[in-house]
Amino acid sequence: MRLKTLTIVGVGLIGGSIGLAAKQRGVAARVIGVGRQPESLNRAATLGAIDEAQLDLVTAVGQAELAVFCTPVDLIAGQVLAAAPACSPGTLLTDAGSTKAVILASVESRIPPGVCFVGSHPLAGSEKRGPEHASPDLFQNRLTIVTRSVQTDPKGLERTSAFWHALGSRVKIMDPVEHDKVLALTSHLPHLVAAALASALPSELGSFTASGFRDTTRIASGDPSLWTAIFMQNRDLILEALAGLGSRLDEFRQVLVTEDWTTLNELLTRAKRVRDALGS
Amino acid sequence: MRLKTLTIVGVGLIGGSIGLAAKQRGVAARVIGVGRQPESLNRAATLGAIDEAQLDLVTAVGQAELAVFCTPVDLIAGQVLAAAPACSPGTLLTDAGSTKAVILASVESRIPPGVCFVGSHPLAGSEKRGPEHASPDLFQNRLTIVTRSVQTDPKGLERTSAFWHALGSRVKIMDPVEHDKVLALTSHLPHLVAAALASALPSELGSFTASGFRDTTRIASGDPSLWTAIFMQNRDLILEALAGLGSRLDEFRQVLVTEDWTTLNELLTRAKRVRDALGS
Repeated sequence: MRLKTLTIVGVGLIGGSIGLAAKQRGVAARVIGVGRQPESLNRAATLGAIDEAQLDLVTAVGQAELAVFCTPVDLIAGQVLAAAPACSPGTLLTDAGSTKAVILASVESRIPPGVCFVGSHPLAGSEKRGPEHASPDLFQNRLTIVTRSVQTDPKGLERTSAFWHALGSRVKIMDPVEHDKVLALTSHLPHLVAAALASALPSELGSFTASGFRDTTRIASGDPSLWTAIFMQNRDLILEALAGLGSRLDEFRQVLVTEDWTTLNELLTRAKRVRDALGS
Repeated sequence: MRLKTLTIVGVGLIGGSIGLAAKQRGVAARVIGVGRQPESLNRAATLGAIDEAQLDLVTAVGQAELAVFCTPVDLIAGQVLAAAPACSPGTLLTDAGSTKAVILASVESRIPPGVCFVGSHPLAGSEKRGPEHASPDLFQNRLTIVTRSVQTDPKGLERTSAFWHALGSRVKIMDPVEHDKVLALTSHLPHLVAAALASALPSELGSFTASGFRDTTRIASGDPSLWTAIFMQNRDLILEALAGLGSRLDEFRQVLVTEDWTTLNELLTRAKRVRDALGS
């Protein structure tokens, strides 16, 4: 894949990493970064993540052969719909949001003909923000989910997959609701649990934490407004995942109450098996 | 502190690190490692964590000026009581267990006069096991809790603190029950939650996890039998901590159910503040 112009909307950790990877791998001749903060765009330009900075969304996306929206999930649909009318026919729009069904439902029926939107979600990132944490290798050997709904254009799906492949990522095609269901378990629920654990700690006990507590709660340092938007968009499936976790916690509580140490050992062994299989 | 003979009972990650630190810092002229597996002791000797390997607990501890028990928490009291009668008057015995009250209650009334036991817990470690993961810097700038009960000998307390200081650790003196209460929140509850989260993941979804899930569940890879013993010994306070977490999770559930996004943002902000204060 060799794009004439790639536009990245939102040049933070993810957007910045897309820019660095695209330039390092020759995926785009020209990379435009769009943002609201000139300072952040300048940092991204200095780091080599973008060639040009643009404050105007519509102008920047209008020049793109492919534009990728790396903004908070509650902004993506509105930005796509605002920019799409300025795009040339054949322009491909995609995103990097952690939720998919709500975004697709908002965009798909209202996007102008000739412009194609395909939902994406690279499973990479961190609790850190800003282009200074970006890396050209962020997607290397990681998985990007690209969604196929009934309305998804097959050619757009193929080009979107090729784009993420070109950035070094593996790609998995998935239904948007299925994506949201999986991510509720693998990302959104862990965030909620990490936040609950962190806030259950009286602040005077901070010095008694070691790597275990720190690992378990690390993602609670993520940006609250980004995560509030994710929780809004995937509310039902997160509530379902939370109920599932509640049952697991009840199992543990029950064996503690009844002092059933054999079953506790089995529960911990089962958990270890799942975790060990994921690698470090 | 300069010991003639330091005996380490259980030469895994913690015991091995004590040996490496003691030798590197000249804390002991001679380090004896005790264990049941000759293979593991040989590895520890090859790594330079111990000078001599001993399979007989009583003989090895009997030669010590200071002995530290780094075995699973359910074995410590029995081993201390088995070895103490062979010790010269003035011998100091301590441990590295993650629970304190049950161990002290078992040991303190039954240890022979002249031999001193003081409970310790270095807040360092990992989900990994074995001397090959040991490091001479494991305790550097970390915190070790040394417990003071009504029966604790003041001179023994001072020497125990000096020992951990000599290995590079900071030291905090704490009541044993207070220790167990704090650790229920900072270590035992996170382990339970990590295990519950890991086991809530259907195994076919492993490939959809990223660093967030992996961090949050990392400690679930810990040894199930070590952790079962910890849960047995600190059952009541862990159940209390679990109830506290339940209330936090209910708060999150409630704001999701009522779609109260302002409060959700506040809960996430509070959690972020706690977590940010801990550093990476």
